[in-house]
Amino acid sequence: MTGSGTASYRRLSVSERRAQLIATALSLFAHRAPEDVSLDEVAAAARVSRPLVYRYFPGGKQQLYEAALRSAADDLELCFAEPEAGPLSGRLGAVLERYLAFVDEHDAGFSALLRGGSVAETSGTGRTGAIVDEVRRAAAAQILKHLSVPDPGVRLRLMVRTWIATVEAASLTWLDEGKLPPRDELRDWLVEQFVALLLTTGAGDAQTGEVARAALAAEPAEGPVGDLARRLAPLVGEAGHLHGHLH
Amino acid sequence: MTGSGTASYRRLSVSERRAQLIATALSLFAHRAPEDVSLDEVAAAARVSRPLVYRYFPGGKQQLYEAALRSAADDLELCFAEPEAGPLSGRLGAVLERYLAFVDEHDAGFSALLRGGSVAETSGTGRTGAIVDEVRRAAAAQILKHLSVPDPGVRLRLMVRTWIATVEAASLTWLDEGKLPPRDELRDWLVEQFVALLLTTGAGDAQTGEVARAALAAEPAEGPVGDLARRLAPLVGEAGHLHGHLH
Repeated sequence: MTGSGTASYRRLSVSERRAQLIATALSLFAHRAPEDVSLDEVAAAARVSRPLVYRYFPGGKQQLYEAALRSAADDLELCFAEPEAGPLSGRLGAVLERYLAFVDEHDAGFSALLRGGSVAETSGTGRTGAIVDEVRRAAAAQILKHLSVPDPGVRLRLMVRTWIATVEAASLTWLDEGKLPPRDELRDWLVEQFVALLLTTGAGDAQTGEVARAALAAEPAEGPVGDLARRLAPLVGEAGHLHGHLH
Repeated sequence: MTGSGTASYRRLSVSERRAQLIATALSLFAHRAPEDVSLDEVAAAARVSRPLVYRYFPGGKQQLYEAALRSAADDLELCFAEPEAGPLSGRLGAVLERYLAFVDEHDAGFSALLRGGSVAETSGTGRTGAIVDEVRRAAAAQILKHLSVPDPGVRLRLMVRTWIATVEAASLTWLDEGKLPPRDELRDWLVEQFVALLLTTGAGDAQTGEVARAALAAEPAEGPVGDLARRLAPLVGEAGHLHGHLH
């Protein structure tokens, strides 16, 4: 949301004004890549003067961009918090619901950020990249907590990092494809990819296998994993030559 | 390989000298991030003077880096070419074998590049990013050709782009983990992830389902997909409540 009419008629506190400028910047970055948004546009959209923006962000657009990114990263990390209760598919689905709403809202800014775009003329990639990596690490830590694995081995770490990359790549593709498939279908597909990754990795690694067993045991037949199993059955069934001994 | 002793004792042609400087730069980038390698080091390793490097690359390190990247991207795209014959798992395995050898060889340079690192002080991310995207598009086009899908829908495009991101993320994780798990195990795991992605996507999308059916039908029982099916069987078997109707 850009600065509302009423907000500009009363005096904002320092932290309110700062938050307003960040929110304004984020809303502009959502529609156009950060490098295409000027500081004058941020000032105009927030209905303040350019010198006032500089008073809060003496480093200019790069500083405002980093503050906006910091703020967005904090919001994103909040999305990851989920009670450790119930089937894993439900927890992942809830987190992805919030994450995809975030992607939907931040749109062009999210895309530019993950593509390594930065408004930085010098060395910005380093600092913005560090914030993105911090969010990835937070996501990985949350997932491992939900999997109840205090000391993950190399295969499980590989699996978790790969799924996070899957979520990022799917988000970017989704934005490129005009937000298709529909957001809730993308969310369900990403949950299914997690289950598939966990099972195939668990088929070759004892630690991941234990995690996969525990996760499957907690899934209800009428839930998303049971649904996936039923939709997979005809495909797998036709390839009887690959698993004949199961019958 | 850095400039060999004998090479520096005879006069190289322009294209030989250019190729030698690029090869030298790539070998230095393989051990340290490109931003930590100076032009003087490239000149010393190639046993030539700094002015000579500038004669070939008047734009200095950034131009040399881009030329090296261009050369590496061309090599990488050559890795993707694979005859359209035999089970898909074998074709993917052969391509991944060459791709992972490339990652192994280019090591730190590969990692820095995919992390958005660039030696560019200004606007380098744009041009190097474009080369990386071109390689991704080439990979996606090759995969779709092997899947015999001339007009892929949004789900199949999503699946292919996601697998490419999976390969990239797994490569970076592999480098971070001191090249563990062993390269051939990583290759096999990536083939398995492709099969899992194809099947789970095919379970919800008619076009991908057709591709998955055709791919499974061509896989031999004693191949990697049959092997995966046998290793998955105990895990899936324990979760009988999710697919009871299969029995």
